[in-house]
Amino acid sequence: MSDLRSPAADRYGDPTVDLAAPNDVLRLQLAHRSVRRFGPRDVTEQELTTLIAAAQSAPTSSNLQPWSVVAVRDPQRKARLATLAGNQAFVAQAPLFLVWLADLGRARRLARRTGVEVGAADYLETTIIGFVDTALAAQNTVLAARSLGLGSVFVGAIRNRPVEVAAELNLPPHVVAAFGLAVGEPDPSENAGIKPRLPQAAVLHRETYDVDGADAHIPVYDERLTAYNERFGLTGDWSSRVLARLRGPESMGGRHRLREILLRLGLPSR
Amino acid sequence: MSDLRSPAADRYGDPTVDLAAPNDVLRLQLAHRSVRRFGPRDVTEQELTTLIAAAQSAPTSSNLQPWSVVAVRDPQRKARLATLAGNQAFVAQAPLFLVWLADLGRARRLARRTGVEVGAADYLETTIIGFVDTALAAQNTVLAARSLGLGSVFVGAIRNRPVEVAAELNLPPHVVAAFGLAVGEPDPSENAGIKPRLPQAAVLHRETYDVDGADAHIPVYDERLTAYNERFGLTGDWSSRVLARLRGPESMGGRHRLREILLRLGLPSR
Repeated sequence: MSDLRSPAADRYGDPTVDLAAPNDVLRLQLAHRSVRRFGPRDVTEQELTTLIAAAQSAPTSSNLQPWSVVAVRDPQRKARLATLAGNQAFVAQAPLFLVWLADLGRARRLARRTGVEVGAADYLETTIIGFVDTALAAQNTVLAARSLGLGSVFVGAIRNRPVEVAAELNLPPHVVAAFGLAVGEPDPSENAGIKPRLPQAAVLHRETYDVDGADAHIPVYDERLTAYNERFGLTGDWSSRVLARLRGPESMGGRHRLREILLRLGLPSR
Repeated sequence: MSDLRSPAADRYGDPTVDLAAPNDVLRLQLAHRSVRRFGPRDVTEQELTTLIAAAQSAPTSSNLQPWSVVAVRDPQRKARLATLAGNQAFVAQAPLFLVWLADLGRARRLARRTGVEVGAADYLETTIIGFVDTALAAQNTVLAARSLGLGSVFVGAIRNRPVEVAAELNLPPHVVAAFGLAVGEPDPSENAGIKPRLPQAAVLHRETYDVDGADAHIPVYDERLTAYNERFGLTGDWSSRVLARLRGPESMGGRHRLREILLRLGLPSR
């Protein structure tokens, strides 16, 4: 789907960008796209082991390792999770659906067995560590999958109905589904491309944050994303899509209740 | 620093683990370690451009791209940030210190210029998206750096004093430092190794979460981490270190105040 002369040019939707990608890591990263249509072959057990070893190799705050992951292959369970996650059919279509869990339960159980308090687990800071460390791990899996010829897509909508997801996966207290990741062989018939991102100058600051310098690059990005969307029969520039997505609680698929649900699941996030 | 026969064996501190790592992505991931001592050479501007392009290539929820990054090279500023981040000298010693920002300011400013409301930005869900997407991006940078021969270490202590960090970096409202990343050429004299992680069976579940099956693997891990720590003159197993780290608000370096500080910085996280 590349129209441009280099992976970096596609990444920015800008034919003047010509960035060296002198190794396979960079080439795979720059060419990343989400895959939402999967071929028939299964993800092997050996591949799954490799994907999780990659995840565990990511950095983690104070070696807390505050995450777990549930590998779902059962078609009925995948179908139920697809329904819970905003009725996204590719969740069921993927041979492997990984549900990544921010997991403070392991440490809480350890504390209970040992008879000590872990009051820090009550705080928002610790919940954030849980989500951040889960994300670092999962991003390693995304790239590891790509290196094995597999595609993937994150599923944030697994947070639409966290209580029901916890029941489906038999999660213990103090554990919440952070996001899903559908994994499988990319179906080459999928009509998808490398989505351009904001110009680098819009996100990279030097020494201090430069509001006007950064935001000046948004209009040209709006033009590039409009052109990209038109290739797929879609309308709208980046700005209008961001504003629609953030309009209000009604645009959040139920996720405006996350704080009260975290409390209910045993992550008080005070 | 490898004593064992494969990167995966080092990763798990278990000589019986023999996992195929059939490409450079996996080899670099499995061999990851944090680098806290840096050689004299600078990180070039071209390398910085590549690192940020890798970051921008990571997935992002609804293409929101809710993050920015400040590249700090000025020695005085690095020294001040090192002080704010728990007096960690390697922050100042690294040639490049990246401060990753969960950034809801870009969308808020867009809304203000357009004259619309973005009520969803008030919710914890959106703050979490900010932190998660920043983490996905930064993990790409960690591996991209490694592929260029650079090392790095995350600095969560940048959240110890977020208001002072925001002042130092001239952050606008609705933006918070999520974590730092010190980047530079690894100094080969650093006495560090590949830290073993929990056995895979402690974190990977099949179809549903299996509390007892997972937690049964913690004792052997405690033995492995004790052995690893002893190599570096440190004491303590994993369980005791986790419990100490999570003991209570006094063990959090000031970060128990994160919720009130987010509100003050314009991320109400309701």
